[in-house]
Amino acid sequence: MFTLIKTDKNTRARLGKLETAHGVVNTPCFMPVGTQATVKTLSHQELVDCAAEIMLSNTYHLYLRPGIDVIKQAGGLHKFMSWDRPVLTDSGGFQVFSLAKLMKVKDEGVEFSSHIDGSRHFLTPEAVIELQQVFGSDIMMPLDEPVSYPCSKSKAREALDRTIDWARRSKACHCEEPRRSRGDEAIPKREIASLPLATLGVARNDGSIRQLLFGIVQGSSYLDLRKEAAEKLVDIGFDGYAIGGVSVGEGEGLIYDVTEYTAVLLPETKPRYLMGVGTPQDILEAVSMGVDMFDCVMPTRNGRNGTAFTKTGKLLLRNSKYTRDFTPIDKGCGCFTCRNYTRGYIRHLLNTEELLGLRLVSLHNIYFYVMLMKEIRGAITENRFTEYKKELIRAYKDKERLKGR
Amino acid sequence: MFTLIKTDKNTRARLGKLETAHGVVNTPCFMPVGTQATVKTLSHQELVDCAAEIMLSNTYHLYLRPGIDVIKQAGGLHKFMSWDRPVLTDSGGFQVFSLAKLMKVKDEGVEFSSHIDGSRHFLTPEAVIELQQVFGSDIMMPLDEPVSYPCSKSKAREALDRTIDWARRSKACHCEEPRRSRGDEAIPKREIASLPLATLGVARNDGSIRQLLFGIVQGSSYLDLRKEAAEKLVDIGFDGYAIGGVSVGEGEGLIYDVTEYTAVLLPETKPRYLMGVGTPQDILEAVSMGVDMFDCVMPTRNGRNGTAFTKTGKLLLRNSKYTRDFTPIDKGCGCFTCRNYTRGYIRHLLNTEELLGLRLVSLHNIYFYVMLMKEIRGAITENRFTEYKKELIRAYKDKERLKGR
Repeated sequence: MFTLIKTDKNTRARLGKLETAHGVVNTPCFMPVGTQATVKTLSHQELVDCAAEIMLSNTYHLYLRPGIDVIKQAGGLHKFMSWDRPVLTDSGGFQVFSLAKLMKVKDEGVEFSSHIDGSRHFLTPEAVIELQQVFGSDIMMPLDEPVSYPCSKSKAREALDRTIDWARRSKACHCEEPRRSRGDEAIPKREIASLPLATLGVARNDGSIRQLLFGIVQGSSYLDLRKEAAEKLVDIGFDGYAIGGVSVGEGEGLIYDVTEYTAVLLPETKPRYLMGVGTPQDILEAVSMGVDMFDCVMPTRNGRNGTAFTKTGKLLLRNSKYTRDFTPIDKGCGCFTCRNYTRGYIRHLLNTEELLGLRLVSLHNIYFYVMLMKEIRGAITENRFTEYKKELIRAYKDKERLKGR
Repeated sequence: MFTLIKTDKNTRARLGKLETAHGVVNTPCFMPVGTQATVKTLSHQELVDCAAEIMLSNTYHLYLRPGIDVIKQAGGLHKFMSWDRPVLTDSGGFQVFSLAKLMKVKDEGVEFSSHIDGSRHFLTPEAVIELQQVFGSDIMMPLDEPVSYPCSKSKAREALDRTIDWARRSKACHCEEPRRSRGDEAIPKREIASLPLATLGVARNDGSIRQLLFGIVQGSSYLDLRKEAAEKLVDIGFDGYAIGGVSVGEGEGLIYDVTEYTAVLLPETKPRYLMGVGTPQDILEAVSMGVDMFDCVMPTRNGRNGTAFTKTGKLLLRNSKYTRDFTPIDKGCGCFTCRNYTRGYIRHLLNTEELLGLRLVSLHNIYFYVMLMKEIRGAITENRFTEYKKELIRAYKDKERLKGR
């Protein structure tokens, strides 16, 4: 499903193409985060207008609300949210371990209370795969056990062993070892896993592309554990590999160390996904280490705080210095916000708590991230990725220096 | 500026055309409310897509935030908010009297504390006209003194006398009797009022159409005061006439009585605007009484509450019965929301407090109101307004009966 088109001469940056049941994703790519089946404040059409080729949603959140039966009845996640391009669903492992209450990990799965209404739930790796099968996710993630930072080696080892075991079970559930039939339907599990998506009424392709399943490399900041995890997962065999458990408070240096070390352990021929990272600088660094896929709440979360990304740094649009600034957020930007509205107007909207302000900045930021990836791909194509990266990082750094004055 | 195209045979409903500096408005019309230079949750483009021909904004709110100097520097209100169609600005009288704190009315003007930061302000009728001149409003409203309901006759009389005096001063300030120069500019007042809008950099017409000024008929529920107000305002002479101080808690019957009584007292050749009204039924009734223009926060406020308008009544989309309803809000509706999303998805968005939900319902409701007016105009054109009105009101009533079962 993944075609490696080109590898950069000076760095490990890669140009690729990932085929999914809902279309092709050009890599390196950024996936806007639609946790609850919506990228916060934006419509699906705005994401299309931003040229987003794929979005991310979250199994834990969707399982709790609206619930699997609702999404099933809607004809899958794509139909439910009116998005006909690829979707990657996170397993919800991170959310179960960070958001849910009264959580108990067992080898069989994880028991927790909903952060919404306190109701008790038990999710196994198999259940998480089955949920994503019903969603019709183009890319599924297996249930894993992330750890916080810092984490003792014995705890990291224990969580890793479970994560690997769960990954094996997830793969088995998806492809080889059906355990139980899917809810109220009489179709045996094996059959469902191998059914072309079109049969489930969620695909627009010719039915020849299955749902993809990625493996998640954990291991905290311990490089030997990361190595072991990568090797074991590659042994099991997945459609792609994610680097999880980074950007959890360990600092920039360690994020880069773990990413660089782990990325090269993963097969050349499969896409590599760095989960939950990051700033434009982080993305440039990780691309140069050979990472292909990214997701982060930063563009939308910062958007709702009134912080806009530009190539020369961030603008805090709530700042009163923008009150009389009637230029766009970024003169060179082609997004709907920059084509139509000024900093002064957006500052007024933010200042008066008008929701349009949150929308306009979120939209600009998503466009910025998607365009950043497009420019990165262009730079790799034209053998000038190193220069592009240097230039962008210098522009950011200059901005920081200006602030320091 | 107003052309009366046709009057209905069976009712007083009128078909008209109001020319303004930023284009023609077909009447009867509905003006979406953009209190703070934005129709809550929506972009200007969405209003255009809804075929809204005019929007309303508010002098009191804009005067406090972002302030007149900001809007002036932006090149006027249209440029500030990226809307190149007509704008009517309410004077802010209603807001000063209902929202501001520590308010003191004098014959000269009204002193008040900002509801935002408590700062003291003094607004005269002349200042309110000057503010709207700088906004570049296509239709300006004079400062008035509305009263609450119920109101003693002596209080209503006192407020009315002041309102009439202020209306006279507003007209004088706009057209005849400049009192002071406009802020930091050396242009004498008289000159500004008669300057073509294009000179102020806010118009897209050939500069031949001035800003319009309407008069506001007050008088509480006292018909003799309403009559006196109408006659005195007509004597002064305005580009259009508003019926103010209705829908302030007096009940449907009295709204209709006052509107019906007042509308016929106003000149045939000028547009009539019923301020702040109302439900689809209210609008149908008022149109049949000869009213041409409407504004109301209902479509957007209800939208943010999750209440959608349809021809057969309102839908409370937060209701759990819509959880598995995968039909659009209204099958016959052509709005972006109904073309793309289902009740079940919108219910999920509202239930999970996702801002897209507020947007989608607000958008549908604005489209509904604008289309209602379009259908009303079509019905008047084709001599079937009475039937159209009856049918719509019956459909609503049937719905209410169904609920009662």
